[in-house]
Amino acid sequence: MRSIVRGFKGSLIRAVANEGLGLPDVLAFWFGEGDEVTPEAVRQAAMDSIGQGETFYSHNLGMPELRQAIADYTLALHPQSAVGLDRIAVTSGGVSALMVAFQALVDAGDEVLLVTPIWPNLMYQPTLMGGVVRTVSLKPNGPPTGGSPDPRGAWRLDLDELLQAITPQTKVLVLNSPNNPSGWTLSRDEQASILARCRETGTWILADEVYERLYFEPSEHPTDHHQAKFNSTACAPSFLDLAGPEDRLMVAHSFSKSFMMTGWRLGWLVLPKGCSEAVGKLIEFNTICAPVFVQRAGRVALAQAEHITPQVVAHLQRCRDRLVTQLQALPRVHVSPAPGGLYAFFRLDGETDSLALAKKLVGEARLGLAPGSAFFPTDQTETAAWLRWCFASQDLSRLDAGVERLSNWLKR
Amino acid sequence: MRSIVRGFKGSLIRAVANEGLGLPDVLAFWFGEGDEVTPEAVRQAAMDSIGQGETFYSHNLGMPELRQAIADYTLALHPQSAVGLDRIAVTSGGVSALMVAFQALVDAGDEVLLVTPIWPNLMYQPTLMGGVVRTVSLKPNGPPTGGSPDPRGAWRLDLDELLQAITPQTKVLVLNSPNNPSGWTLSRDEQASILARCRETGTWILADEVYERLYFEPSEHPTDHHQAKFNSTACAPSFLDLAGPEDRLMVAHSFSKSFMMTGWRLGWLVLPKGCSEAVGKLIEFNTICAPVFVQRAGRVALAQAEHITPQVVAHLQRCRDRLVTQLQALPRVHVSPAPGGLYAFFRLDGETDSLALAKKLVGEARLGLAPGSAFFPTDQTETAAWLRWCFASQDLSRLDAGVERLSNWLKR
Repeated sequence: MRSIVRGFKGSLIRAVANEGLGLPDVLAFWFGEGDEVTPEAVRQAAMDSIGQGETFYSHNLGMPELRQAIADYTLALHPQSAVGLDRIAVTSGGVSALMVAFQALVDAGDEVLLVTPIWPNLMYQPTLMGGVVRTVSLKPNGPPTGGSPDPRGAWRLDLDELLQAITPQTKVLVLNSPNNPSGWTLSRDEQASILARCRETGTWILADEVYERLYFEPSEHPTDHHQAKFNSTACAPSFLDLAGPEDRLMVAHSFSKSFMMTGWRLGWLVLPKGCSEAVGKLIEFNTICAPVFVQRAGRVALAQAEHITPQVVAHLQRCRDRLVTQLQALPRVHVSPAPGGLYAFFRLDGETDSLALAKKLVGEARLGLAPGSAFFPTDQTETAAWLRWCFASQDLSRLDAGVERLSNWLKR
Repeated sequence: MRSIVRGFKGSLIRAVANEGLGLPDVLAFWFGEGDEVTPEAVRQAAMDSIGQGETFYSHNLGMPELRQAIADYTLALHPQSAVGLDRIAVTSGGVSALMVAFQALVDAGDEVLLVTPIWPNLMYQPTLMGGVVRTVSLKPNGPPTGGSPDPRGAWRLDLDELLQAITPQTKVLVLNSPNNPSGWTLSRDEQASILARCRETGTWILADEVYERLYFEPSEHPTDHHQAKFNSTACAPSFLDLAGPEDRLMVAHSFSKSFMMTGWRLGWLVLPKGCSEAVGKLIEFNTICAPVFVQRAGRVALAQAEHITPQVVAHLQRCRDRLVTQLQALPRVHVSPAPGGLYAFFRLDGETDSLALAKKLVGEARLGLAPGSAFFPTDQTETAAWLRWCFASQDLSRLDAGVERLSNWLKR
C-alpha cells in the first residue's frame, strides 16, 4: 500500500469517540450531523421511485430534471452567477464533489493551499492525489473585551497573509466558508480580493460552500436582483456572486445540511463553462452516478427548499444561542456565536492538548466533543485547546444537559 | 484542468448511443445492464429502512451486519479464502471499490499492467492517479475449424507473454475475469501461475470479479469444502480460492450483476489482512459511506442470493444461447459462446473500424451495439472489427428482433 495512505492519521474525532465505547450514557456532540430524520415528503419520493422500479443507471452528471432544479436554486440564491444546467454536476455527496474536483485539478507535485482550521477530508484528498499541501491559519480573536464577543465569530482571516501566500505556483486554493469547525465566514470584500489575486496567479478556487444556507447573519446581497422567494432565509456570501462563468472556480455543495439528508450521499458541483463533459467522465470513474431514487428525493427537497431550510436554520439558531449563552457563563470558556454552520468552537483556558482534553471529557464527564487538533495539519503545534460542539439537536435540553456536565467537570 | 483529464476520450459507447438520439425504434444492446427491475424483497427492504427514518451516516466500511453477511457469502463460495468481516469494505458500487483500490496502491509514475480488452474505466482510473498503464492483449481465436466454436470463448491469454510482462516494476496487475467485454475467463491453473509470479515480483493483483456468479461452465472447485447451499450455481475461478490473507490481492465486487442492482451503487472490496483501517479512511474521502437503506437492500439480496442468482444465471444462459446460436448462423459473423458475463463479443468479416461499423448499424439498421475499440487503449490499431452485444434481456424475442436487423443489414 502507498506510504502516503498508510501515513494518514486516523480520525481524531473517532479516537475520542472510541474512548466512549462501552461507557454508558455519553452525551455525544462530536459528529457533524443533526439528530432529525429527513423530512417525510423527501423520503416518500425515494420510496415511490423504488416502488416504481427505478433501479437502473442514471446519467453520469445526474438527471437533467435535477440538474435544472439545482441550477434554478443556485440562480435564485446567486442571480449574478448566471448558472445553467450545463454547469451542474450531481455527485454522491459533497465529499464526492470535492474528490472529483481535486481529481480534475491536482497533478502530483501541484501546490494546494488551504485555510485552516478545516474539515480534515479537505487536507487528505489533495494529498491522495499527490498534491503538496500548504496552509494559512485563521487567527483566534482575543478574549472579548468588555464582555461582548465578536459577532464575526472567534476566528479571523489575515487577508494580506493569505493573498501573499497565493502565488503562480498555487494550483488550487481551498476555502470552506462558512467554516467547519469555526463558523468563520468570508466577507464579500474578502472574496473579491481573493478572486482578484487568483485571477492574477491563475489559481483555481475550490469553494466548499455546503453551509451557505446555515447562516445566521443578515445576507450581503451584491445586487437587488435577489429573488423574493428566497428572501426568507439568509445566505452566506458566495464566490458565485462574484465570479464569471469563465473563472477558475468550482463550488461544492451538499444536500446533507440544508435538507437533513446526511445519509443519502447526494451533492453537486457548480463548474465553469465547458467543464462538465470532463467532470462527467470523472464521475463515471468514481461512482458512475447517484441512484435515481436518491435524485428523486433531492428533487423534492429542492422543490420544498423554502419550506424546509428556513425551519432548519431557525431551529439551529435557537440551538446555537442556547448553547453559546450558557457556555459564555462558564469559567475558563471563551466562545463567540458562530455566524454560520453547525458548531460552537470554543477554547478552554489552561489546556493546550485538545485531544487529551476531549478524551478526559468523555471519560470523566461523559461529554463527547471533537478535539480542535482534528482540524489542523499534524505538524502544527497546539498552543491552546479548542473543542468543537455540534449544536444540531432536536431537543434543546440535550444541550443544557451537556453544558451542565461541562460545568460540573470544571468545578471538580 | 489537468491535461490528463482533458485528454480522456469520451466513451465510445456513448458516441454510438448519441448517433441513435432522435432515431425512432432503435433496439439498444450497448450498455452493460439488463432490463429487469431489482427483486421486490430487496426493494422493500430499502423502502422499509427509509420509512423508518434510517437517513443518517453509516460506518465508513459499512454496517457490521452487512460486512459479516458479505464475509459469509464469500466464505461459502471460496472456503479457502478464510475471509472474515475484518477483510470486507462496503463501497458505493463496484467502480468505487476499484477507485479506492487504485487510490490505495498507485503513486504517480507507478506501472499498472492491464489485460485487454477491458472495461474502459479500468484503463482510466490508474491514469487518473498518475499511474503509467501498460497492456497485454488477449489473442482472438481463429475462425472455428469444423464449425465447432471454442467452448473457452473467442479469446485466449498468452500466459507466457503475461508472466514475462510482470516485473518488479509492475506495481499493480489488473485482471477482469470473467471479462467484460469478451467473456474470457482465467482458469485456476492460470491464476496459480500469475499469483506465483506476482509473489516473486511483489506485484499487487487487483481482480475485478464482479461477473464471477454469471458463469456458465462447470465450476472448478479446488477442494471438496464447497458448501452445499451454494452448489446450485456455478462460480468462476477466483484468486480468493488460491491466495492467503497476507497476499497482495484486492478483489472488487458489485451487487449490480448477480442481484440486478445496477442503479443502487453498492459493491465491496475483499482486502488482505490489516488493510481495512486505511481503506476505511479512503472511503471517508470518497463517499463517506453507502446509504444505510441501500445497505439494508444489499443485506436482503445476500440473504436471498441462492434464490435470486441462480434464476438470473439460468435466464442469462438462455439469452446467451439464443443469441449466439442465431449469430453463428449469419454470414461474416464469428462468435463463440462466452463462458461468463453478460456479453456476446463477435467479429464481423470485412470490417476493420468497429466505431464506424457500430455507428452504421445504428443509423442503417437501428441496432445499438458497443464498438470493440472502446475496450482497448486508444493507441492500439484495430485489425478487425469487434462488437459487444449485451444479451441481458427479459424478453428473448428482443434478441431475435436484433439478430433479424443485423441479418437484413448484412444482406443489403
